[in-house]
Amino acid sequence: MGRWQPNARGRLLEAAMELFAERGYEQTTVGEIAKRAGLTERTFFRHYADKREVLFGGAQEMRELFTRTLAGLPASAGPMEAVGATLAAVAEGFRDRHAFARHRQALIAANAELRERELIKLADLSATVAGALRERGVGEPAASLAAEAAIAVFRVAFERWTRSPGTRELGLYMEESLVELKAVTAGA
Amino acid sequence: MGRWQPNARGRLLEAAMELFAERGYEQTTVGEIAKRAGLTERTFFRHYADKREVLFGGAQEMRELFTRTLAGLPASAGPMEAVGATLAAVAEGFRDRHAFARHRQALIAANAELRERELIKLADLSATVAGALRERGVGEPAASLAAEAAIAVFRVAFERWTRSPGTRELGLYMEESLVELKAVTAGA
Repeated sequence: MGRWQPNARGRLLEAAMELFAERGYEQTTVGEIAKRAGLTERTFFRHYADKREVLFGGAQEMRELFTRTLAGLPASAGPMEAVGATLAAVAEGFRDRHAFARHRQALIAANAELRERELIKLADLSATVAGALRERGVGEPAASLAAEAAIAVFRVAFERWTRSPGTRELGLYMEESLVELKAVTAGA
Repeated sequence: MGRWQPNARGRLLEAAMELFAERGYEQTTVGEIAKRAGLTERTFFRHYADKREVLFGGAQEMRELFTRTLAGLPASAGPMEAVGATLAAVAEGFRDRHAFARHRQALIAANAELRERELIKLADLSATVAGALRERGVGEPAASLAAEAAIAVFRVAFERWTRSPGTRELGLYMEESLVELKAVTAGA
């Protein structure tokens, strides 16, 4: 304890996913996760507030990725162009993580409390994107609608990708969903 | 007790909203709500599973309204035309209910547990709409994206309406948001 633990966060995540697969999410304790990772409970709580948070540890990174990508775009980029670039960056972050994403999605689908948390994280993400778009000078309700559209495309594409065999990249599902959303709304 | 109570459900809702305004949501008990409505706790629980449900009692009606409206449309109506008609029907259901909607929105915004419940109800509604669109022969991912777009328009329009003085109808905010979503996604 107290010693620096190389990649403790990643080891805890890996141990947790193993145990969730073996015993189920509900039946796994923080103590067991720490033990499997060769770490202490104290170390666990330095990285995650609770067992549930292990599955949502990527939310902060994703929020930062969204904000960074939006900040790096030229001022001339319209709201949906910005949204498209952001989704592409997110998809890139999931490259080679299909098995993990698939497993995580199955755990969330099977647990009401996890589904609630997922919905809250997505709503927070939508608010973050809307705020970043307003900072780019996009007015309301355009900023909020573009942000909601981004989350809608993300949700639908992500679910399709996790249910697929994983031979196609998430980015392709994102692109397809964005094109489809455009086609669908054009018929309004 | 046991006697038929005329409009007990509506009286409980009204009593609850009064008490939430006077004392705050957290500080109000089911017993107090029943007493204010001139009813027993037992009658309360015949109408609502818990205090929280008083604020979400309209979800089932809204789901039925969505399904009924979609079922009544001609087969030729495209997914977003269907979504537009559904949103118009929902807006009609909120006519003259601005003060209630505004108060309810403020209560939900101030309480994390209520926000979670609201997000779940909206996600359920999205799934209901997607299912109804698939039954109309709309493929995937178009059905899910149109449903998510409907919920996005609903959320954004509803929030704008509840923050407005209430002199304009919800339906106008819905129409504006739908037009804006179309304009935003066309720029993708």
